[in-house]
Amino acid sequence: MHDSPARRPTTPARVTALSGDRVLERPDKLVTEEPMEIRVHGPGQEPESLAVTMRTPGHDFELAVGFCVSEGVLASPDDLATVAYCLGLEPARQEYNVVTVRFRTPVDLAGRARQFVATASCGLCGKATLDQLEVSCPPVADGPVLTRSTLYSLPERLRAEQSVFDATGGLHAAGCFGVDGSLTVLREDVGRHNAVDKVIGWAAFERRLPLSDQVLMVSGRVSFEIVQKAAVAGIPIVCAVSAPSSLAVEAAARFGQTVVGFARHDRANVYTRPDRVELGT
Amino acid sequence: MHDSPARRPTTPARVTALSGDRVLERPDKLVTEEPMEIRVHGPGQEPESLAVTMRTPGHDFELAVGFCVSEGVLASPDDLATVAYCLGLEPARQEYNVVTVRFRTPVDLAGRARQFVATASCGLCGKATLDQLEVSCPPVADGPVLTRSTLYSLPERLRAEQSVFDATGGLHAAGCFGVDGSLTVLREDVGRHNAVDKVIGWAAFERRLPLSDQVLMVSGRVSFEIVQKAAVAGIPIVCAVSAPSSLAVEAAARFGQTVVGFARHDRANVYTRPDRVELGT
Repeated sequence: MHDSPARRPTTPARVTALSGDRVLERPDKLVTEEPMEIRVHGPGQEPESLAVTMRTPGHDFELAVGFCVSEGVLASPDDLATVAYCLGLEPARQEYNVVTVRFRTPVDLAGRARQFVATASCGLCGKATLDQLEVSCPPVADGPVLTRSTLYSLPERLRAEQSVFDATGGLHAAGCFGVDGSLTVLREDVGRHNAVDKVIGWAAFERRLPLSDQVLMVSGRVSFEIVQKAAVAGIPIVCAVSAPSSLAVEAAARFGQTVVGFARHDRANVYTRPDRVELGT
Repeated sequence: MHDSPARRPTTPARVTALSGDRVLERPDKLVTEEPMEIRVHGPGQEPESLAVTMRTPGHDFELAVGFCVSEGVLASPDDLATVAYCLGLEPARQEYNVVTVRFRTPVDLAGRARQFVATASCGLCGKATLDQLEVSCPPVADGPVLTRSTLYSLPERLRAEQSVFDATGGLHAAGCFGVDGSLTVLREDVGRHNAVDKVIGWAAFERRLPLSDQVLMVSGRVSFEIVQKAAVAGIPIVCAVSAPSSLAVEAAARFGQTVVGFARHDRANVYTRPDRVELGT
């Protein structure tokens, strides 16, 4: 149900591979990047465009619903009626690049437009946006405590589950783990935000929101938007292989989230709320 | 002139650093992430918002002008009148987060809006957008040929010049190199597209457009938008440390650009137009 039947996450290609002074022509696989438009509507309303994102096909419905949740358009999964591809488009190539989300309640698109601009683009002011977000997004629950040994194990576990990365080397992953280190769900995408939205969309379909007992592990850096999306989904701990930004740390401090960066092998930097990491092993 | 005086590219922070079973509280530096709004206007027109981007402060005017060029809003650097911070805003923290670009000719904002949606977000259709782009962006010139030894040297040269990365480990770099391996310009940013726009903005200020004799080297992956921005700036060779996406390769083939991925040490994969890489050493 969640995969786009006409599109694959990898695309075959030919490559001229140079190695030292050798040259080899060989087949290769590229990570697929395609635009996807998300349209939303309520009962009796015409679908209207909410956003267009460059994404890797696969789990498209999760991406659409996760985006609606993390941007505050869909307040509760109970409001979700249907999710569908918009078939019959010209050219046919686009049939699986337009997803329509129908809500059970009317969608206020004028209000949405303002909200989306404010949260996704930060409007004029990071400060003002953080303040606004706190209104629509209460601080996350205190949640669980992660042992140091589990924390150290997460980067490798994330990497081990990245099937499309193995084929292409070309994309981001976001995984939810329990504090015992068990994998709950993992999604990949060329866009770092999309991988997180797919995870949140999965949780919406599974009625697992808020994800207040989960650790979000991401393969790259932690930007403000990753922290913001995690906060809306109630995720208390955000962990990354690479560095967080200043605004990511500032936002996490406000939402009461733990941000961990540079998690590699037996090292990790905790930037906010270190009380959620058990400092003994 | 190009740096925001109130903002630094790094932000001091405290970190709880875990290493094995040790814990160390120490000062750290984070890459600064702040929103920047770009406003544009022509003679007698009120400034209107063109875009908001999360960026690393520094070279803000280059970012604003580079964005205008790479998104097709500014057809020629001759049309550029002034670039300025929008001072006197409340709260004062935002004074250096709003940049106004004034053109010598009227800006058609209605036309711009359509164009921006079409090119930055790909509208409904990657195919249609590529077709549209070909109209506004002719194929790049045949340009230079890169020796294999120079190609192999570029990733290390880019890395050696990344000053903010050294401090924070947290951001992308884009550098322009001559085919002799000499560095023309390098810019860093939390956003991969912003680093490229800063390079293009630098070229606009320096009257170096089109960059038809240059190699663009980027620190991460190559997405469709990187290729598109490079094409508008006339850059014939785009080189990356990591993987290109399917749409990046498809776009480069249309624009006649050479795309190189996985450039590391003495290896590199050439995906399009290998005639610009000298296959002998």
